[in-house]
Amino acid sequence: MSEPLSDMIEEVIHHSDLSDGKSAVSSIIAQADETEMALLLESLPIDERVALWQTIPEHKKLDVLIAMRGDPREVIINATQPEQWDMLFVDIEAEDLLELTDSLPQELVERAFSAMDRIQKSYFEQANEYLEDQIGHWVSHDFLVLPINAKVRDGIRLIRREMPRHTDVILLVNRSGHFSEAVPIAKIYGLPEHVPLVDIMLEDFPVISATEECEVASKEVQLSGYGALPVVDESQKLIGRIDVTTASELLLEYYERQQMAGAGMDEDEDLFSPVRKSAKGRAIWLGINLLTAFMASAFIGMFEATLQQIVALAVLMPVVASMGGIAGSQTLTLIIRGLALRQVTSANVAALLAKELRVGALNGIIWAVVIGLVAVAWFGEPLLGVVIAIAILLNIVAAAFAGVFVPVILDKLDIDPALSGSVILTTVTDIVGFVAFLGLGTLLLI
Amino acid sequence: MSEPLSDMIEEVIHHSDLSDGKSAVSSIIAQADETEMALLLESLPIDERVALWQTIPEHKKLDVLIAMRGDPREVIINATQPEQWDMLFVDIEAEDLLELTDSLPQELVERAFSAMDRIQKSYFEQANEYLEDQIGHWVSHDFLVLPINAKVRDGIRLIRREMPRHTDVILLVNRSGHFSEAVPIAKIYGLPEHVPLVDIMLEDFPVISATEECEVASKEVQLSGYGALPVVDESQKLIGRIDVTTASELLLEYYERQQMAGAGMDEDEDLFSPVRKSAKGRAIWLGINLLTAFMASAFIGMFEATLQQIVALAVLMPVVASMGGIAGSQTLTLIIRGLALRQVTSANVAALLAKELRVGALNGIIWAVVIGLVAVAWFGEPLLGVVIAIAILLNIVAAAFAGVFVPVILDKLDIDPALSGSVILTTVTDIVGFVAFLGLGTLLLI
Repeated sequence: MSEPLSDMIEEVIHHSDLSDGKSAVSSIIAQADETEMALLLESLPIDERVALWQTIPEHKKLDVLIAMRGDPREVIINATQPEQWDMLFVDIEAEDLLELTDSLPQELVERAFSAMDRIQKSYFEQANEYLEDQIGHWVSHDFLVLPINAKVRDGIRLIRREMPRHTDVILLVNRSGHFSEAVPIAKIYGLPEHVPLVDIMLEDFPVISATEECEVASKEVQLSGYGALPVVDESQKLIGRIDVTTASELLLEYYERQQMAGAGMDEDEDLFSPVRKSAKGRAIWLGINLLTAFMASAFIGMFEATLQQIVALAVLMPVVASMGGIAGSQTLTLIIRGLALRQVTSANVAALLAKELRVGALNGIIWAVVIGLVAVAWFGEPLLGVVIAIAILLNIVAAAFAGVFVPVILDKLDIDPALSGSVILTTVTDIVGFVAFLGLGTLLLI
Repeated sequence: MSEPLSDMIEEVIHHSDLSDGKSAVSSIIAQADETEMALLLESLPIDERVALWQTIPEHKKLDVLIAMRGDPREVIINATQPEQWDMLFVDIEAEDLLELTDSLPQELVERAFSAMDRIQKSYFEQANEYLEDQIGHWVSHDFLVLPINAKVRDGIRLIRREMPRHTDVILLVNRSGHFSEAVPIAKIYGLPEHVPLVDIMLEDFPVISATEECEVASKEVQLSGYGALPVVDESQKLIGRIDVTTASELLLEYYERQQMAGAGMDEDEDLFSPVRKSAKGRAIWLGINLLTAFMASAFIGMFEATLQQIVALAVLMPVVASMGGIAGSQTLTLIIRGLALRQVTSANVAALLAKELRVGALNGIIWAVVIGLVAVAWFGEPLLGVVIAIAILLNIVAAAFAGVFVPVILDKLDIDPALSGSVILTTVTDIVGFVAFLGLGTLLLI
């Protein structure tokens, strides 16, 4: 076992000269596997990252590069001399190049492609018939396969020759290469050699369609109880398999993407990306949010005269907006998870809305009373309490409504609700909150 | 393969009488596995959920219940008659009861415990020596183990007898039950019967400590390339194993928890929980946020006199707060992911802060100019533009600062930054934003 990541980061950052070869750093490089090295490189400021990269032995570099996230990987790619690529690409396989394609300039993709043998080239081309969010793009070709009429002796011979990771079945295909049955390896031993493998085939062995979405297919593999599942194209032809390790990598990526999306970033974001690049990436999100903030301000601006007369409204208006935003984001989060699990559908959305509206009404009434009383105690003006109470109730109910409809509509439009749902929702709750509060204030207090 | 979840939901909700036994619903029950049934039950309003539950055959019920999330499961538990439990508990094992413990009343846990045999009871007690967030709590006891001096013939005999899912190695233990080596099953065949298994052991086979955090251990299993890893206690005694399926269930739960935490909920939240329960659960989060909103209002209240004279400040103040909140949440999200990946440590936090402050300064200057110009154009008052520009710059830089420090400090205090990070962050950016903007307005505009 190698040492914890935090110790490795500590040693690299506080060691002045990476290249003297006698340091603790060289023992890190010797011990860490490619996943650990990738995490370590991503954790380092750019200068240290590039310096450490250069001390990694050539034969390990490709695997480490593949294990890295997109943006930190690009820093390494940009620091690599053109003549070094031939060395890196010497043993490259289709699966490796598929991982790197998005980070490499087109000319390097072509150089890597031409370094591969005929079979790897055909795998690469087959994978590119599917989109990156389809499971067919990520299949591996490392599995045990036999013709449908194979016998136990063929199975045993095959197993002795090789055993790819997570292999618990032999796949049987017919003459056209169509997937037919799966045979559990554990049952093969102990049987007479001439027994046909189909005699011990598994009933209803799960198969994945190559066009299935990555995260759906990955969850299916994870929960199947098998080490890997076969992937077939529309004609049922076996094109590869997805094992539990690949499935877990795809799922980790998916969850990271969801996590980062809420702040308008993606899973490739680099802890230490160059300042200008990072500022540029985030500026778009800030700009979108600025537009919504100005929209809210424009609505406030409609009530300038009221605000001038009753300054307490200005003091309290963020409370109305904030309560709506928080209540709405609770409903939104619940619905987004439900959509991701395929649990929210047109059949139950009406019942969900009814329930969320009732929850909103109940919490709305409770917090309307609390906030109303605080407002009266603070400003000594009973009607102000009534105004804010009604505005809070209206905004929390509107938030429940938007919390259900915004993600459902975005999902129907094929827009990821985890990315844009919360911006749209808070725009709604800000505007409803400000208009209800200042509008009622204008009607009742002046 | 059974039909998609959405079709199943549709059929159950729009089928008036679940109990007539001739419906499409009974074919759903016959075909769906326990994971699908659990997802389906969770997707249904309470009445339909309880009705469907009652049509599930008794022998399937326990597995379905185990596959469900906590809150929707409690609905079922509450609707189950006391006399039905003995039937449900008839074949219960330690692992099942561990999954259910949190949802069951203490007396039912005891009833289930007394229904188990001696071995299962000892597994249950052993698991409870570890906390729920420690991997030792979730180990399975279904694996192949032999003494350290076992031969190939012993291995083959063992494999023929049973083969638990995701088994690619036989574990060898010494006389005290301490884990010693792992032997790859694929290599056993073809060897002479008398060869000692240690001769083909794997070098550096990874072992997990029982006190390791669940998500760290689960990722290790997922990325190890093996179907399962052994788990040992402090004395290296083998207490069980975690396979890739269990690891993936634990990780899915972890990511759901993270996703829900941002809105003050947990992964057990029910789409259709009873209104009062749901409102109560969410009220706490609304209350905490209300306190922070009132804090921000109190700061605004300090500038009542200013607001009365310059109403444009009231119109624009949400823009200042919002830009700080958005910029801060970007930094926060990046740091939270880094902490989860163990990539943010005391060794690189200073470099990270420096980079985030530079990004904040750059974006702060750009947006300060943009917003300043808009404010001048809108209100025709050049000094107002200067005031809001300075306030925006200050708030975005403060947001970068808080975005790094809030999660790092919460993490040091062992508080999940995904839960409370964003409340604290927006409180900071609201207060800094309002005070900077209204304070500068008081100084420069009056």
